[in-house]
Amino acid sequence: MEDFIKTITPYLIKTRRRIHQYPEVAWTEYITTATIAEELKSLSFSLSMGKEVLESSKRMGLPTYEEIANNERRAKERGISSHYLDKMKDAHTGLVAKFNTRKPGKHIVLRFDIDALPIDESVESGHIPADHGFSSARPGYMHACGHDGHAAIGIGVAHFIHAFQAELTGRYTLLFQPGEEGGRGAKPMVDKGLLDKADYFISGHIGIHSLKIGDIAATTNKFLASTKINAVYHGKSAHAGLEPNEGKNALLAAAAATLHLNGITRHADGQTRINIGKLEAGSGRNIVADYAKMEIETRGETTELNEDYMVPEAIRILKASAALYDVDPEIEVMGFAPSEECSPEWTNIVEKAARESFSIKKVIPVLPMGASEDATFMLQRVKKVGGSATYMIFGTPLAAGHHHPQFDFDEEVLSVAVEAIGRVILQLQK
Amino acid sequence: MEDFIKTITPYLIKTRRRIHQYPEVAWTEYITTATIAEELKSLSFSLSMGKEVLESSKRMGLPTYEEIANNERRAKERGISSHYLDKMKDAHTGLVAKFNTRKPGKHIVLRFDIDALPIDESVESGHIPADHGFSSARPGYMHACGHDGHAAIGIGVAHFIHAFQAELTGRYTLLFQPGEEGGRGAKPMVDKGLLDKADYFISGHIGIHSLKIGDIAATTNKFLASTKINAVYHGKSAHAGLEPNEGKNALLAAAAATLHLNGITRHADGQTRINIGKLEAGSGRNIVADYAKMEIETRGETTELNEDYMVPEAIRILKASAALYDVDPEIEVMGFAPSEECSPEWTNIVEKAARESFSIKKVIPVLPMGASEDATFMLQRVKKVGGSATYMIFGTPLAAGHHHPQFDFDEEVLSVAVEAIGRVILQLQK
Amino acid sequence: MEDFIKTITPYLIKTRRRIHQYPEVAWTEYITTATIAEELKSLSFSLSMGKEVLESSKRMGLPTYEEIANNERRAKERGISSHYLDKMKDAHTGLVAKFNTRKPGKHIVLRFDIDALPIDESVESGHIPADHGFSSARPGYMHACGHDGHAAIGIGVAHFIHAFQAELTGRYTLLFQPGEEGGRGAKPMVDKGLLDKADYFISGHIGIHSLKIGDIAATTNKFLASTKINAVYHGKSAHAGLEPNEGKNALLAAAAATLHLNGITRHADGQTRINIGKLEAGSGRNIVADYAKMEIETRGETTELNEDYMVPEAIRILKASAALYDVDPEIEVMGFAPSEECSPEWTNIVEKAARESFSIKKVIPVLPMGASEDATFMLQRVKKVGGSATYMIFGTPLAAGHHHPQFDFDEEVLSVAVEAIGRVILQLQK
Amino acid sequence: MEDFIKTITPYLIKTRRRIHQYPEVAWTEYITTATIAEELKSLSFSLSMGKEVLESSKRMGLPTYEEIANNERRAKERGISSHYLDKMKDAHTGLVAKFNTRKPGKHIVLRFDIDALPIDESVESGHIPADHGFSSARPGYMHACGHDGHAAIGIGVAHFIHAFQAELTGRYTLLFQPGEEGGRGAKPMVDKGLLDKADYFISGHIGIHSLKIGDIAATTNKFLASTKINAVYHGKSAHAGLEPNEGKNALLAAAAATLHLNGITRHADGQTRINIGKLEAGSGRNIVADYAKMEIETRGETTELNEDYMVPEAIRILKASAALYDVDPEIEVMGFAPSEECSPEWTNIVEKAARESFSIKKVIPVLPMGASEDATFMLQRVKKVGGSATYMIFGTPLAAGHHHPQFDFDEEVLSVAVEAIGRVILQLQK
Repeated sequence: MEDFIKTITPYLIKTRRRIHQYPEVAWTEYITTATIAEELKSLSFSLSMGKEVLESSKRMGLPTYEEIANNERRAKERGISSHYLDKMKDAHTGLVAKFNTRKPGKHIVLRFDIDALPIDESVESGHIPADHGFSSARPGYMHACGHDGHAAIGIGVAHFIHAFQAELTGRYTLLFQPGEEGGRGAKPMVDKGLLDKADYFISGHIGIHSLKIGDIAATTNKFLASTKINAVYHGKSAHAGLEPNEGKNALLAAAAATLHLNGITRHADGQTRINIGKLEAGSGRNIVADYAKMEIETRGETTELNEDYMVPEAIRILKASAALYDVDPEIEVMGFAPSEECSPEWTNIVEKAARESFSIKKVIPVLPMGASEDATFMLQRVKKVGGSATYMIFGTPLAAGHHHPQFDFDEEVLSVAVEAIGRVILQLQK
Repeated sequence: MEDFIKTITPYLIKTRRRIHQYPEVAWTEYITTATIAEELKSLSFSLSMGKEVLESSKRMGLPTYEEIANNERRAKERGISSHYLDKMKDAHTGLVAKFNTRKPGKHIVLRFDIDALPIDESVESGHIPADHGFSSARPGYMHACGHDGHAAIGIGVAHFIHAFQAELTGRYTLLFQPGEEGGRGAKPMVDKGLLDKADYFISGHIGIHSLKIGDIAATTNKFLASTKINAVYHGKSAHAGLEPNEGKNALLAAAAATLHLNGITRHADGQTRINIGKLEAGSGRNIVADYAKMEIETRGETTELNEDYMVPEAIRILKASAALYDVDPEIEVMGFAPSEECSPEWTNIVEKAARESFSIKKVIPVLPMGASEDATFMLQRVKKVGGSATYMIFGTPLAAGHHHPQFDFDEEVLSVAVEAIGRVILQLQK
Repeated sequence: MEDFIKTITPYLIKTRRRIHQYPEVAWTEYITTATIAEELKSLSFSLSMGKEVLESSKRMGLPTYEEIANNERRAKERGISSHYLDKMKDAHTGLVAKFNTRKPGKHIVLRFDIDALPIDESVESGHIPADHGFSSARPGYMHACGHDGHAAIGIGVAHFIHAFQAELTGRYTLLFQPGEEGGRGAKPMVDKGLLDKADYFISGHIGIHSLKIGDIAATTNKFLASTKINAVYHGKSAHAGLEPNEGKNALLAAAAATLHLNGITRHADGQTRINIGKLEAGSGRNIVADYAKMEIETRGETTELNEDYMVPEAIRILKASAALYDVDPEIEVMGFAPSEECSPEWTNIVEKAARESFSIKKVIPVLPMGASEDATFMLQRVKKVGGSATYMIFGTPLAAGHHHPQFDFDEEVLSVAVEAIGRVILQLQK
Repeated sequence: MEDFIKTITPYLIKTRRRIHQYPEVAWTEYITTATIAEELKSLSFSLSMGKEVLESSKRMGLPTYEEIANNERRAKERGISSHYLDKMKDAHTGLVAKFNTRKPGKHIVLRFDIDALPIDESVESGHIPADHGFSSARPGYMHACGHDGHAAIGIGVAHFIHAFQAELTGRYTLLFQPGEEGGRGAKPMVDKGLLDKADYFISGHIGIHSLKIGDIAATTNKFLASTKINAVYHGKSAHAGLEPNEGKNALLAAAAATLHLNGITRHADGQTRINIGKLEAGSGRNIVADYAKMEIETRGETTELNEDYMVPEAIRILKASAALYDVDPEIEVMGFAPSEECSPEWTNIVEKAARESFSIKKVIPVLPMGASEDATFMLQRVKKVGGSATYMIFGTPLAAGHHHPQFDFDEEVLSVAVEAIGRVILQLQK
């Protein structure tokens, strides 16, 4: 193992940097998916893409038709072969890699998310991707949550399975999931049945907490349940000087909704969140705005706090704010992730696995997530079918918080994560 | 005259429709300017463009560098010759046409505004441009204020001067002004000195009031003074689930500013207006928004109401709203138009001129504008240098109010306006 | 006349100061009414009070039962005889004084309003009532609109009629109206039929504009129509620390309503106003507020602007704001005044009357009110029954604006107003 | 013990009901204090009051001078002797009862809070105090948090100490604390040094959780730190119709502050709270409000969350909201309570004590408070001087939540609490 890790480390870093340079947001990961496929091509996996791995109708929060077309054109212009593009057509991104040892054993499913964020990456000196020349080549987009690392780790785990296949039994399924941001990609993979025969499920995240390299968490709790909502207000435009009273002001209604949504009362039963992350309204300064669009998310420490409290409050406020300014509301749920718990036995499994590791310094039994993750759909399904599931955390110092333009991590975490997952897989053979 | 008007009417309509199809907003009127130049080429005018007619540094509310480049490319792709494009380079649109009779006499300056609006034109049946196939060919842009008609009228007046030059004395200057919307184009023409030697100044607008074809106003009052302000808020992004408290929310600050600006107290001394016409904030649903931009305008029945009350109130509120959410405000004035009065003698001039007209049915001595117009800069300058100035209104039924996606007018107003201005010019010879 | 005025001047001042010391707000003018009755007792008028002069059911904006009881007790404690108190029982304040010359002639009705405001009078040096020892003896209440002066002028006019009865013909009715503030007292007097036989109607106000002593306006225009609304929100209290989510927060709903009401769009057809003048909500710092009460008024330059635009907008916003925070709204109209015009012939009447006056320096034909006045109900009724009505303004410098804690006027205006009304009455004999 | 409890039970209920009928809010507990003193007079305690037990200058959130005077008059009118009133003069309420066994031993301090809330008690049938005729005799005030029970329990514990003195060693100090609501009364007792020699400290609360009679918690955690803030805005009044622009609207500023305070971002580190519990603004409907007062509280799961996050956010928002409407803010801290932990050994102590009890059914080691309690000042001090401190919870079903108009508890909890505290005292002798 030690040799394997040492050998693969430069490759993990190179792969992460390649992916970092072409960040793609949910349902547009054409190049990212194709890149992963190319890296796995020479290994002993069978690869599936497109409608084979996604329940098409369950994809939430799709881009507009025009955005999809633009992204497909972009991928084509960058030389992605039509072999891949045809399969992914119409926003069916993501990849599944399966390996069967042909020996009796368990079915282990691993999930790695691969999408980026609509954030403009820092170009300031001191930001390592800028200094080392692997910053985002797409202005306005950035891997600011570490999913570039997750993709690289997944590729590394595939190499591990390939290299260690003699020691392994059973079956291995690697899910390279699109659209984790916004809670959009896990459900269509779950609903396609990819986890229905899983004995073990492993996913995880780098960073999150201020941990050192070598510190890992065996399990995670406090996943916030989350719902993603789009609200559009339709008003009536008018000349703002000549007859302002003839207008129905969608921009004012959205500003009101924003403030009142943000004021949803805290709940005594646990943490909740509300964010209006994006607002676009109006067409020009001297016209009463007839249009406004808000992108909103709610969260709750439990699925109940989110679904029975935050979501109905948000919807009432969205409707009442429309009534305040006499505009028509159009409210749509774009994504969702439940709250879920890891299986407790993983503390023991990971601790045992770590004993022989040279890179793992400390195993923390459980760490709080404090955020949302649609991996919870997968945890939920695996536990429902009788399997055992965990979500690990791989410690790394961060240059800035997740979703920040200067987000960056210590690339040493990549090999730690590959070793940790590898050791856990070996442990599960026992 | 009657023959001239009858002959030119189909041409006026055709010209208006051509301009209607290629609406261009302030400082991007490349095709519109070139079209007008082409129409005037064969007449006895000397034409000037670009920095010859605009005090470059006084242009307010310019588009971004990128928008300018895109528009110049667009114009080039539509075949506008580099002869014109070179002169207009870097957002120097608009045209001045001068004619000198070489006979002693007065200097008459006429102004026609030519810019469009960022409004999506209606495609519904019943909207005449849609039914007759001359709707906007540029989605998101529209001549929704009649400046297509103004440009056609200006071209018609040039033909009148050319045709009637034997009866005329003195000099004639026709200003085809860019960027009236937003109060951006008049001041750089005024500051270039184009009105410093004017004896008479005539401008005007079609529509505004529910008048019939043939009804015109000799003068206009109640121009609202107006200031155009952009405000940008700079906050700090953060993961909305993991650490919302680390963010500084520019979107919330902008929503607050919007509501509080809209609540500026009414003033006892006269009408005021405030409009936040456009708001764009945030980059994604699960990120605390670190950026927000608002496009704002204030108006007042007098320059004092606007400048001494509405503008300082707006700026105080913009700063305090930033302080509410601990974000940094960046406030910029993008355009301005004062309040001004027409010279009273025009009632008499226009009434006399109308007596011989076959198309003018009624002359109303004065009508209220109730909106802003940067022609007031020109009125102000002409009066200051001892000249006499008016702003006329040419009545037409409207399909919908100004700045409305279904705005349209009765094209008969075009020939009425050309006859009215022609008759006034003849009257000024006496 | 000159002798009469000189003789009565010190009495007018003394009477005004007495009334100033006991300010009483709408429907609680027990002492004020009784004071006026006492002053008129010795003159040749027949006095009526209570239900004889008020259509009881048309009184709007009554105080609570408890407030009425407290005020009646207060009046009793100050020695007001039960003869008066019995008649005024249950908030039937105000007085009508009638005089019949028994000679054929016109019926002239004059109206003087007598109520005060809930304002805490300034005690600072420089405020004349404070310096001269006749400030309000009731903390929290003040004659800050000059109705103390109006009452004194009415008493002075009664003395004039008494003194000049030999020269007069016809009938004279003096209405000492309660509850002008809030538009509450005029309608019940009108509906009692007191103006149904009026040939002439005269009312008026001191101050309003920055006029000098001796300047008067013959007529007034631009009365703003106004509606007075109370809104109560009923929520649900809860411990703000233990279970804030169990509450329904009426205070937040009222704060929202306040901001959104204040943001009702300006109307192109003329001036409008909105004021939320009073807000009381909640019972304690650590309890989610289950109750909020707002006192609101809307105004419009025309009755249409007020009733067809401002009032429905306000009611929609009040309901939607309740929906925002899931509380129950209770909305009640407390008072109303229409917009109305004076009869034009008064310019001529007052100018003629002024010619012989020694104290009137200038007659202005018409001045704008710019505020609301429920005398408009009376103007409306008199004009409807074929009479002629005016509302005059009697100029005086003001120490501070109307409704300001330092409001005060030059007492010389009292005798100017009595002379002006006296001269107009004499003029109406001709 | 069983006999003692059985005998004292009717007395506890009667005493609680007496106190329930005369609810008095912070710093006005004149009658309550005197009632307790009278009940303890015949026992072997030395009683202290007024400045002997309160560090006068550390009293926060005092009523106005006028309110204090009114309350002292009220107490006098109800027959409280001047012996007591003189000591309590100027809002020095509360009582300390000390008992010295003259035998070597520990110093045990017990604290019982005695103040009520500004809540209007329900008069509906089904509300037991209403049905049994012991409802609040003071409209607008109510014991809605169980402090009437706490006072009765304190009196019961005094009787226990008196009755069991032969079995006791050391010293006993009973603090009957005023002003717990608003975090106002504990600090002046702490700063007077009353806990500086404490070996053990016991306080507690009835209710809080849905526990059954007989269930008690040995310790409590999750006390929310809390700060109580008053904010007054000073604006400028003006006539709302004539010259609204002349006003500076304090009511609008307070409405803005309310909404923006309520929108303080949730913090990732734990629960926070904000409540604007009371708002009073303006004097009349047609006057621009020149005054507004808000009663606010912030809370945090830790002292840091409250003091380093919520309080500075609140103060920034209060100042910026004043700037929005150009009014002057006056911000004052009225009370404060830190977060604190109980000493862990009490779980063991209480469990042992409960073994012999006939009324205690279950001991829960620790329960979360989820609210604020200024007993934390006392816990903090006792632990600082080397003592051991707990805050117990005595279970009872509740008719409605704390601070609700229908709040009520099962009076059986009174004797359970007295037995529990008595047993713990006996246990501490061992």
